[in-house]
Amino acid sequence: MNFDEWMRGVLARVETALERYLPDDETEPKRLHEAMRYAVLGGGKRVRPLLVHAAGELTGATAQALEAASAALEMIHVYSLVHDDMPCMDDDALRRGKPTVHVKYDEATALLVGDALQSQAFVALTDEAVLDVRAQAALVRELAHASGSLGMAGGQAIDLASVGLTLSRPQLETMHRMKTGALLRAAVRMGALAGASPEAEALRALDTYAEAVGLAFQVVDDILDVTTDSATLGKTAGKDAKDGKPTYVSIIGLDASRTLAAQLRHEAHDALALFGGRAQRLAELADLVVNRVS
Amino acid sequence: MNFDEWMRGVLARVETALERYLPDDETEPKRLHEAMRYAVLGGGKRVRPLLVHAAGELTGATAQALEAASAALEMIHVYSLVHDDMPCMDDDALRRGKPTVHVKYDEATALLVGDALQSQAFVALTDEAVLDVRAQAALVRELAHASGSLGMAGGQAIDLASVGLTLSRPQLETMHRMKTGALLRAAVRMGALAGASPEAEALRALDTYAEAVGLAFQVVDDILDVTTDSATLGKTAGKDAKDGKPTYVSIIGLDASRTLAAQLRHEAHDALALFGGRAQRLAELADLVVNRVS
Repeated sequence: MNFDEWMRGVLARVETALERYLPDDETEPKRLHEAMRYAVLGGGKRVRPLLVHAAGELTGATAQALEAASAALEMIHVYSLVHDDMPCMDDDALRRGKPTVHVKYDEATALLVGDALQSQAFVALTDEAVLDVRAQAALVRELAHASGSLGMAGGQAIDLASVGLTLSRPQLETMHRMKTGALLRAAVRMGALAGASPEAEALRALDTYAEAVGLAFQVVDDILDVTTDSATLGKTAGKDAKDGKPTYVSIIGLDASRTLAAQLRHEAHDALALFGGRAQRLAELADLVVNRVS
Repeated sequence: MNFDEWMRGVLARVETALERYLPDDETEPKRLHEAMRYAVLGGGKRVRPLLVHAAGELTGATAQALEAASAALEMIHVYSLVHDDMPCMDDDALRRGKPTVHVKYDEATALLVGDALQSQAFVALTDEAVLDVRAQAALVRELAHASGSLGMAGGQAIDLASVGLTLSRPQLETMHRMKTGALLRAAVRMGALAGASPEAEALRALDTYAEAVGLAFQVVDDILDVTTDSATLGKTAGKDAKDGKPTYVSIIGLDASRTLAAQLRHEAHDALALFGGRAQRLAELADLVVNRVS
């Protein structure tokens, strides 16, 4: 099976899992459930679910376990997008090529959609029919740490506080390590932890891989923000510059950002040496993250 | 030990546990952590932690386990207050006698405080040093279900949608069962589940108790909203009527609401018969909920 076939298979399974783990829109409160499904289904690159599945191959995790972990991670990711897009945060009207939740519905609904998606992620991880209690506890621990004030939400706070400031490159990296890196790292770790308990050495190698992929993802995001149009991105292009947000491109320039992305891709590949050919999907995902055009 | 002494002991331990489970405000991002601590510490009736501790006595749960469960429940409760107070929801300026988080800080910070408190609740429940993996998984499952779109967040959505409408009493009850009842019920169940696995019959009795206490809590809230001043309540009095929100008082009147509260207290007591004298604290808490003046 080549990478494209593997990826299409995973994406189809993830979409079905998200369908299943979200309350249906015939259940009360219907409008909230409809808005949760609008936010989550039928869009997005699903980078975190792909990382979960690629890492899960290393520890023989079952398809069901990887689907639960993928659904949980994607629900956390989408909740953060819904809240970030709200007027009191980035105030954005377009996401994944569609009106954002507060534009399509209203602000109160967007707030509750995000809140409820976060809870639903932890519902998915404690599905007794899918994961043993050890894995349930381990995956919840990873996801809760990665989402909170020392991870994603904390990075978002630093991001907001940095508008209009001149950040140093280390400061920018710290912000991204928390804001997007923590959840990407959690995706890789949760994929591995969903199977047979991985060795400490393997987890360390996966952390190094995830750290490099996480930063590469952000560097490429910053490059695309200035080189690509809104229609291709599915979100408002050029917004960081307009909002006075520091980016890799604004700090080190476009050429150096491209060089950095290529270098991080190499670091990600090197970290996988421990696994030999068994980590092929993870290596291919590092390539996908760096070579993507949207 | 009489009830007051027991309660003071629990409240002191819960405050220390919350201190410990919240990131300190010297850790970056400092402003976010300061705001999280402002929202959580030094205020509130701590009804959910008291229920956790009273129920935990029935199954011999350790003090540490009950502290973790209490901290998690209180963090979820406070996150919901912080988000509910925001301008796009109830737009309230006063909570627990202090300016609300978006007034004291700003809206974006209030949004992130709530988001991060939800994550932090699940961090507390997966503290490996305190709970075994079975209890971690069980408590996360209870809390995630109670918080989400079929519980607290869903009840909030129904509450918002009901402004200006005439609800029937069953509709009002459904809303409150989700909005506040689900988390109160989770408090009782999580206290019990933090110890030796309770029998199904005991859990059913606790559910009946919690359901009655949860409704009584809301009926008394509605009574106090029209009979007490803002200074005593620590929040804006008379707000439900002003906002056109349906309440027990507006639907069945003040006298019938008082009769209903007394009746629910009896139902709560009756549900505890199974436990004999061992459920004394739960019985006393039902009295506290109905007899409170703020």
